[in-house]
Amino acid sequence: MVDALPSTAVPSVAESGAGDGSEFDQATAVRPRRRSQPRPSALPRDGSGDGAAFAVGVFDATVDPGWCVGPKPNGGYLLALAARAAGATLADAGIDHPDALASTAHYLRAPDPGPAEVHVEVLRPGRSASQVRAIIEQAGKRCVDATFTMGVLPEEAPQPWWSGLAPLVLPPIEDCVRIPAAREGMPFVVSIMDRSDLRLDPAVMGFATGDPGGRGELRGWISFADGRPIDPLALLFFVDAFPPATFELAPTGWVPTLSLTAYLRARPAPGPLRISQRAQLVADDRVDEVCEVWDSSDRLVAQATQLAGIRIEPGISAPTSA
Amino acid sequence: MVDALPSTAVPSVAESGAGDGSEFDQATAVRPRRRSQPRPSALPRDGSGDGAAFAVGVFDATVDPGWCVGPKPNGGYLLALAARAAGATLADAGIDHPDALASTAHYLRAPDPGPAEVHVEVLRPGRSASQVRAIIEQAGKRCVDATFTMGVLPEEAPQPWWSGLAPLVLPPIEDCVRIPAAREGMPFVVSIMDRSDLRLDPAVMGFATGDPGGRGELRGWISFADGRPIDPLALLFFVDAFPPATFELAPTGWVPTLSLTAYLRARPAPGPLRISQRAQLVADDRVDEVCEVWDSSDRLVAQATQLAGIRIEPGISAPTSA
Repeated sequence: MVDALPSTAVPSVAESGAGDGSEFDQATAVRPRRRSQPRPSALPRDGSGDGAAFAVGVFDATVDPGWCVGPKPNGGYLLALAARAAGATLADAGIDHPDALASTAHYLRAPDPGPAEVHVEVLRPGRSASQVRAIIEQAGKRCVDATFTMGVLPEEAPQPWWSGLAPLVLPPIEDCVRIPAAREGMPFVVSIMDRSDLRLDPAVMGFATGDPGGRGELRGWISFADGRPIDPLALLFFVDAFPPATFELAPTGWVPTLSLTAYLRARPAPGPLRISQRAQLVADDRVDEVCEVWDSSDRLVAQATQLAGIRIEPGISAPTSA
Repeated sequence: MVDALPSTAVPSVAESGAGDGSEFDQATAVRPRRRSQPRPSALPRDGSGDGAAFAVGVFDATVDPGWCVGPKPNGGYLLALAARAAGATLADAGIDHPDALASTAHYLRAPDPGPAEVHVEVLRPGRSASQVRAIIEQAGKRCVDATFTMGVLPEEAPQPWWSGLAPLVLPPIEDCVRIPAAREGMPFVVSIMDRSDLRLDPAVMGFATGDPGGRGELRGWISFADGRPIDPLALLFFVDAFPPATFELAPTGWVPTLSLTAYLRARPAPGPLRISQRAQLVADDRVDEVCEVWDSSDRLVAQATQLAGIRIEPGISAPTSA
């Protein structure tokens, strides 16, 4: 693995996470290698800010084997890792925009657990929000290309002005079913299920006994297994932590995310999250899924949408459509 | 404006659009300046493909004053412009991936009508899909940063395997209300309403008489005013062509898009599209909107989500929530 910089290195906000010793903070740690040194780009340099070059950062990171689905790291985990490097680069440039208000990651190839680099470029620094691009690279190959609108989610969020969405209703957490990292009949270990505590509504558990409910929705409670508080950075992991919602349509193999977009709407209140993950259309070997994340105060704190590849076995017919 | 290359230049697919002389094809035309010349990058070079450098392209374009909302170009129009340059760069590299299966644009600053450049970089060429980044730049400043997963939408799309969404039901087009580019009481001209033919369901027209319906949804029929056929590229414009869905909640000023994500699901059948544009949550000066686009064969051909800034006047109270 990659050695951390010696302790004489300039300290970075990236080195002190919300939970410090927690599994999530360790797995998303980024260690600055070079900093704020602009380099020539194939793409046009931003002309703002008195002609000064934009800030860049290069970080060492370790893709953690404990945050995987089978042999490959989870997409939300990688998004959080990239966001942490983005926030650290802004902080090093004196810009306090730690929260990823809008994020999109395009997944080019799945990295393996082990050393990786995160290359960050501030596209546009702003007063209330800044745009940043971060690329996770491994062995000289780009793996994840993420773009962020970074800003600040207020400590005490004002009440929403209007909502067209009703809070997710779930059975009590003690009536829901914990999803294990390994189970008889599962083709691989889902190690993120040891990092998080996911409890699904029994009404969407048909897939576990080979009898998918046909609604294309999973819903349940989730939190970190080690009790780490849930902050905005953690929401980027949780928007992609559920199994594919298509489990409740048909048994499928790997459902690789092509593109994941997340919006963070408020800092979550303490306590486990309630999440709904819903498939909308399965067509032409692709599926889109929508994710809504509610906190203990009934606030919608995060939303996400993703497009993923999917292979349905030829003999399998679809449940009746809505 | 920018001169086109002399006719001895290598022809590009970008120079022959679906409708050739149509307004949309003219407004999204891109003229190659340099091509397939890799340049040094601030970000890691892709290591795939026998160590060969990735393809890049630089294009001249003209931001057309006819595709604006007030003085500034429409976000979906800019997304289509960027996608056309992305497809042209792939085509020049021998890769036939013309359709933007997944797109995300982060809007850094709004360009003015006039000359612009599009800088394109192929992030990862692939067999069934390729990832490409395109930046629209004006006067040395980055305006739009877009990332695409490009591929091919089949000429004859197979029937969807499953859908959880019901086709949008609208009154007949002749019972819907054409939205003009200018209207008494409107603070500015919306020139895209002269380029497109948008007819809203009368049930969502409360805003026009100062009496918003309170549902946060607009829906209607749309097509090009000059009759240009609707192809996948055009869908990138149409996913952002509606007025803000918040018009049906409260009168507001400018609702600037921060981030727009679009998925194209099928090549549209001939005829006008039916679109639903729906606000979900207005909180902390931001709103997210979801767009669904249905074709004449009742197929969901495009989906989009966006996060936008919004300012509600302090004295204005929200309609009753869902």
